[in-house]
Amino acid sequence: MVSRHIHVIGIGAGDPDYVTVQAINALNDTQVFFAMDKGEQKSDLVELRRTVCARFIREPGYRFVELPDPQRSRTAEYRESVADWHGARARIWVRAITAELGPDGVGAFLAWGDPSLYDSTVRVLQGLAAEAEISYDVVPGITAVQALTARHRVPLNEVGAPVLITTGRQLREHGVSGSAVVMLDRDCSFRVCPPETRIWWGAYLGTGNELLVAGTVGEVGERIVALRAEARARHGWIMDTYLLRA
Amino acid sequence: MVSRHIHVIGIGAGDPDYVTVQAINALNDTQVFFAMDKGEQKSDLVELRRTVCARFIREPGYRFVELPDPQRSRTAEYRESVADWHGARARIWVRAITAELGPDGVGAFLAWGDPSLYDSTVRVLQGLAAEAEISYDVVPGITAVQALTARHRVPLNEVGAPVLITTGRQLREHGVSGSAVVMLDRDCSFRVCPPETRIWWGAYLGTGNELLVAGTVGEVGERIVALRAEARARHGWIMDTYLLRA
Repeated sequence: MVSRHIHVIGIGAGDPDYVTVQAINALNDTQVFFAMDKGEQKSDLVELRRTVCARFIREPGYRFVELPDPQRSRTAEYRESVADWHGARARIWVRAITAELGPDGVGAFLAWGDPSLYDSTVRVLQGLAAEAEISYDVVPGITAVQALTARHRVPLNEVGAPVLITTGRQLREHGVSGSAVVMLDRDCSFRVCPPETRIWWGAYLGTGNELLVAGTVGEVGERIVALRAEARARHGWIMDTYLLRA
Repeated sequence: MVSRHIHVIGIGAGDPDYVTVQAINALNDTQVFFAMDKGEQKSDLVELRRTVCARFIREPGYRFVELPDPQRSRTAEYRESVADWHGARARIWVRAITAELGPDGVGAFLAWGDPSLYDSTVRVLQGLAAEAEISYDVVPGITAVQALTARHRVPLNEVGAPVLITTGRQLREHGVSGSAVVMLDRDCSFRVCPPETRIWWGAYLGTGNELLVAGTVGEVGERIVALRAEARARHGWIMDTYLLRA
């Protein structure tokens, strides 16, 4: 049985050199790249996507198809609004995949970092693959967490100890014990931590605009807040992450 | 000022195609690959290391140097014995790096998966770089965690929720809430979880011997225990990891 196939390709967190050989093979196997139109305010990210394709695809026969991204309800309860939003995405994706790919065609979604971590592509495909005749596979990529620890040259875990990967919201609600990496934090939530907490912070990791700061929250916390605000204003967007150790 | 330089290169978790472009560049920049002699019972892992070098290095002028790995005390307290062991490693490494590399030479240690996660190479280098004139950088790699979620095509986190990366020992002591990935577990510690806990298990990820099982602990737990014992006996070693969701 033939079916349309989708690669979900992790392209790493910022540096095109983070792309794996497996990802390069999947890029070269793809006829149509589907992408969410996010109003293009994150145009540096769109640019990275195009750079990765231009650099690693040997035969330039591929196309980009931009898909409208449904609005997420800001009034409904968070998880429920995300579920609705995934459903709306799935309907748009099935129509586009069916229209743009032949019955045995191959498409792809490119995920920043790794498709398994704080990315909804796999979750949306799980839903739609059950109904439509669409198969998919997942190609892992280097996450911002790994770029952060590599650039700071710091282990993620302490010897034999666990590490929590979490969000700014969770950090504000639960605090930190041991080692924690915080993602999706627009609010510099590390300020809830005791001043002696160690922090390794990074923004625009793996790019020419990379920023790295390390120290204790008491020593460098305010510097990070100021640096982050200034960089965000200058570039129009920011992606940052940090490792905390209590 | 010239100094000897060391790349710590993550080569990914099993599949040579997990190697990144950055890792390939670092491999090609290296004159001497240092490796721990672990009694070679994990000879498939040694083989992967050699396969990666043979496949991705363009000019075959490199050498392998095997370093003796000091015994870790089994009687002292765990963290203390690890610290002593790192100190003993650092002394062996400084001597070898100084003897095997010229003053501006480049060496490398290859790390399975990513050097930041449950790997001691970076920690040992942090200690010795302070005293010896040795600089180093870290190249991230695809971890077994990412290979696991990619092969099972499952998100690591639930929407907006945290994920704990932990060990078998920690799981037995603290149980699980939410999502947790367990590494370094020789004891199938998932058996402490309630039977309705979901599990995605994988062994020899990314290799031709890969094993994948998913279900609830109640449904597939005993099957994993049997499969793991049988595979370990057949191959002489096993590396496995799993994702739990309470």
